[in-house]
Amino acid sequence: MGMPSGATGGPVLTVGSVALDSVRTPFGEIEEALGGAASYASVAASFFCPARMVAVVGEDFPEEHVAKFAGRGIDLGGLRRAPGETFRWRGYYDYALNQAHTVVTELNVFEGFRPELPESYRQSPYVFLANIDPALQLSVLDQVRRPKLVACDTMNYWIEHSPEKVLEVLARCDIALLNEAEARELCGVPNLLAAARQVLSYGPGVVIIKKGEHGSLMLSQDSYFAAPGYPLEEVRDPTGAGDSFAGGLMGHLARCGERDDGALRRAIICGTVMASFAVEDFSLDRLLRLSMEEIAERYHEIIAMTRFGNL
Amino acid sequence: MGMPSGATGGPVLTVGSVALDSVRTPFGEIEEALGGAASYASVAASFFCPARMVAVVGEDFPEEHVAKFAGRGIDLGGLRRAPGETFRWRGYYDYALNQAHTVVTELNVFEGFRPELPESYRQSPYVFLANIDPALQLSVLDQVRRPKLVACDTMNYWIEHSPEKVLEVLARCDIALLNEAEARELCGVPNLLAAARQVLSYGPGVVIIKKGEHGSLMLSQDSYFAAPGYPLEEVRDPTGAGDSFAGGLMGHLARCGERDDGALRRAIICGTVMASFAVEDFSLDRLLRLSMEEIAERYHEIIAMTRFGNL
Repeated sequence: MGMPSGATGGPVLTVGSVALDSVRTPFGEIEEALGGAASYASVAASFFCPARMVAVVGEDFPEEHVAKFAGRGIDLGGLRRAPGETFRWRGYYDYALNQAHTVVTELNVFEGFRPELPESYRQSPYVFLANIDPALQLSVLDQVRRPKLVACDTMNYWIEHSPEKVLEVLARCDIALLNEAEARELCGVPNLLAAARQVLSYGPGVVIIKKGEHGSLMLSQDSYFAAPGYPLEEVRDPTGAGDSFAGGLMGHLARCGERDDGALRRAIICGTVMASFAVEDFSLDRLLRLSMEEIAERYHEIIAMTRFGNL
Repeated sequence: MGMPSGATGGPVLTVGSVALDSVRTPFGEIEEALGGAASYASVAASFFCPARMVAVVGEDFPEEHVAKFAGRGIDLGGLRRAPGETFRWRGYYDYALNQAHTVVTELNVFEGFRPELPESYRQSPYVFLANIDPALQLSVLDQVRRPKLVACDTMNYWIEHSPEKVLEVLARCDIALLNEAEARELCGVPNLLAAARQVLSYGPGVVIIKKGEHGSLMLSQDSYFAAPGYPLEEVRDPTGAGDSFAGGLMGHLARCGERDDGALRRAIICGTVMASFAVEDFSLDRLLRLSMEEIAERYHEIIAMTRFGNL
């Protein structure tokens, strides 16, 4: 791959949560570790291009976590420290590992989160709106000036509580990222392809449906792409997989500067690679000790595991 | 593709059920239509190479169904007509379509089914042991002489009631076909890759895990292959998907006469194609009006939807 770490391409701006996660899985347990959608996405993107984030933490947010972002070269001009405590999530996964069970969510400073972009961030060409209130996602879109590419994520809570706002966000995005259940719920149809087609009709040019261990699929007006999941014998902590996927995806698109079908397919595989590393350990631990060589190696492994010849 | 229909390659012998199915799905309903694992597998295989089956039907089995097999050139020397009624299955699928709900199973003549291979069948080079009592699968293996390649299927019932016999069958097969739930149940591990690796340790050189709409994966000692599901907006009746997959798989392997990794990957895509057609309509209706051109076209569609470039 031979790219210098995070050196080229327009910066990727992620807006979302930075959290302290307490997670238990069949493979272990962590207390108040670094988490949050913006953390995973920004760190994942930082391997491909410059990354910046808009997020809020409390007075209790450990400096060592800030240092982790800084160590990845992430621009922290938009990371605000507010009076109060940092957003906390406590949850667990059982052996199936595909369903997070929430024990406690303490919004804390995140409750009053109103993303305000520093002036220098308003020119961000690549914007990832992680899963936050769609009203806030819209306010971010009002602040950025003519971004080249916008991707958004959402979750069942917003689909149930603010469906109109979710649709408004989708209409203003280039890429919609949803997981299987969200796509089915948003569209009210059980067939995934039908759901994806319906999401397309809401406005985004590209829909990517994340299917966990089963990989992902991309649908646009003239293309369909099926990406496998990277096979892992041990998933230690699935937290952050979707956000790491988004970070890898946006990072590749920003780095290569293209957005045609070929670039999108490669970006999805980069997302697949970053998600697969993220779940190998708790918190961002695996991403933070990752090398470009490992990313390239896994990318090529996925090529090898999907190729087959003509009849 | 340009192959004459069912003309070349060693014959594929399928041993399994021929049934009269009554099925209800959100898209319609059929009464006493042609069904059964051997029916789907043999008809699917017949597009690639000569096919033969060992199965039993009752006195009430309609001649028009026999004519369907004959119309596909299937050798029916092993289709026995026994006193009594044909095996019947009645079931339904709800909107999720991934889970068959059985209403009634009437084994009838199938209860006394003891597969006896006509002398001419004992030389069958390609053998597919569809989902029947593993004791019967073993008796078939005792009757065939040095087959080139044996594949087997099974189901949760046998895993729960005859686990030792299932393991005995696996140890004597080249290819083990299981669905996700069966693999997890047989091995007692939730991780699919770990389960597949464990199945390999039971003896077969290749294990293929079928994941329905999510496609399939193949694991051997030195290869891992991920195949997507073919995206269908309307699945009218999922019955027979797995057996059609097996028929397409074995048909391709018999036709090309190879069993290396490349042949296996192509065979899995042929299986994917045949399964995708089977579920487009009730019973074997879609398979029976299928053309080689359609098979080749869909195969190439799957190539297109899985390709992506180097970083």
